[in-house]
Amino acid sequence: MNVSIIGSGNVATQLGKALYQSKIEINAVWSRNPAHALTLAQQINSKTVASLDEISNSTSEIVIIAVKDDAIKTLVEQLKNYKGIVVHVSGAMPMDILSVCSKIGVFYPIQTFSKDRDINFKNVPICLEANSSETFKFLNELAVLLTSKVYEVNSEQRKILHLAAVFACNFPNYLYDIAGDILSKHQLDFEIIRPLIRETAEKVQKANPKEMQTGPAIRKDMNTMQAHESLLANHPEWQKLYRLMSTVIAKENKD
Amino acid sequence: MNVSIIGSGNVATQLGKALYQSKIEINAVWSRNPAHALTLAQQINSKTVASLDEISNSTSEIVIIAVKDDAIKTLVEQLKNYKGIVVHVSGAMPMDILSVCSKIGVFYPIQTFSKDRDINFKNVPICLEANSSETFKFLNELAVLLTSKVYEVNSEQRKILHLAAVFACNFPNYLYDIAGDILSKHQLDFEIIRPLIRETAEKVQKANPKEMQTGPAIRKDMNTMQAHESLLANHPEWQKLYRLMSTVIAKENKD
Repeated sequence: MNVSIIGSGNVATQLGKALYQSKIEINAVWSRNPAHALTLAQQINSKTVASLDEISNSTSEIVIIAVKDDAIKTLVEQLKNYKGIVVHVSGAMPMDILSVCSKIGVFYPIQTFSKDRDINFKNVPICLEANSSETFKFLNELAVLLTSKVYEVNSEQRKILHLAAVFACNFPNYLYDIAGDILSKHQLDFEIIRPLIRETAEKVQKANPKEMQTGPAIRKDMNTMQAHESLLANHPEWQKLYRLMSTVIAKENKD
Repeated sequence: MNVSIIGSGNVATQLGKALYQSKIEINAVWSRNPAHALTLAQQINSKTVASLDEISNSTSEIVIIAVKDDAIKTLVEQLKNYKGIVVHVSGAMPMDILSVCSKIGVFYPIQTFSKDRDINFKNVPICLEANSSETFKFLNELAVLLTSKVYEVNSEQRKILHLAAVFACNFPNYLYDIAGDILSKHQLDFEIIRPLIRETAEKVQKANPKEMQTGPAIRKDMNTMQAHESLLANHPEWQKLYRLMSTVIAKENKD
């Protein structure tokens, strides 16, 4: 297989590295930022190209567009003469955004990526969609080289998955951040709650989170909740968040 | 060392098992629910007692009260003739709630416990407080048998830690639960986002969550946020939570 990558951000970098480690040839990397493209290309034994025309005219069997959602449409228009498969990696965008090309699909890895933190793709679910069974077959062959978890997911379902991922990843990370800020304001180290964060995530790897809920809200421990709200008096947004979270959690417990 | 345990819930069970595995003798278990006390006692080679007087008159060097916060005060009054050390394990309660006894302290493990999920205590931070250096020394000797992470934390700091733990554990778990509900309403399996949950927690084991924030809110991706809010139209509380979380996250990004 012979792949080209458009983009040089978190997803492009981690996906590019994973493809490279799976012995897949990366023909070229293009990015709006040539320096970033070069950094990525050097890590995956590839080269950068100066224009998307070079990718259009290349022998790549597939072009993976891994850029911000609002840049996809403009970029794919520059690939309209390309004869291979074009996919994007976005959870939020429909496949049809690529329809200026004829062989299109989506290659959506459900994971949180950072440039500096390498991911073991073996455990990353990859959600595939394609506009023909032939293209789907190709995407599936590519995906199984990276992971054992391949799902077929249409554009509507993918939007739901992306929404769930915001609740499962982006929001929890921000709560970790608030926890860290609360601690540091009182000269306490974030390190002290890291094992708790890890265990909270580990607990739901086999169980259902509904059965794992602990804390003052599910116990309807009003004294503790009121004390906590008082401690947050100088941070109205955190207080509002505390109150809203606690209210919805307490409703779960119909005791 | 010779310990007695009051309580038979999640913390009592996991702490009791950890003490037992560390070769500490558990003299007796008492719980308001005798059947639960028996279940715990049988797991830790101990016995149950019918009344707290038996614990007061026992040779235990320390009694660990691991019950709901609002039950501590009533229980400790029944131990006022006991000559050993009395501790509670609560994040929210001050040490002074035990002051009817003379040798008092707090033995607060920062972790989320379930009866059915055994915890490796080696990685559990234990926060200690005592009303004398002698008692502190005893608690420290006990704690280091269980974990390498022992902290001295006063009652004010412990309240802060407990508050931070709510943000780092209880709230994220509830967000996992919402994510699971969103998926199941659309015939998608929670399994598909478990690797994401794990990686989100793993990322902050070395890094600062502020540097790890990803998702539509930190990117100020208004289109995606609006689309997500529309998908939540039938769940006003989830929608409200989505909006509040996104608003506070977007404020972090001053781009």
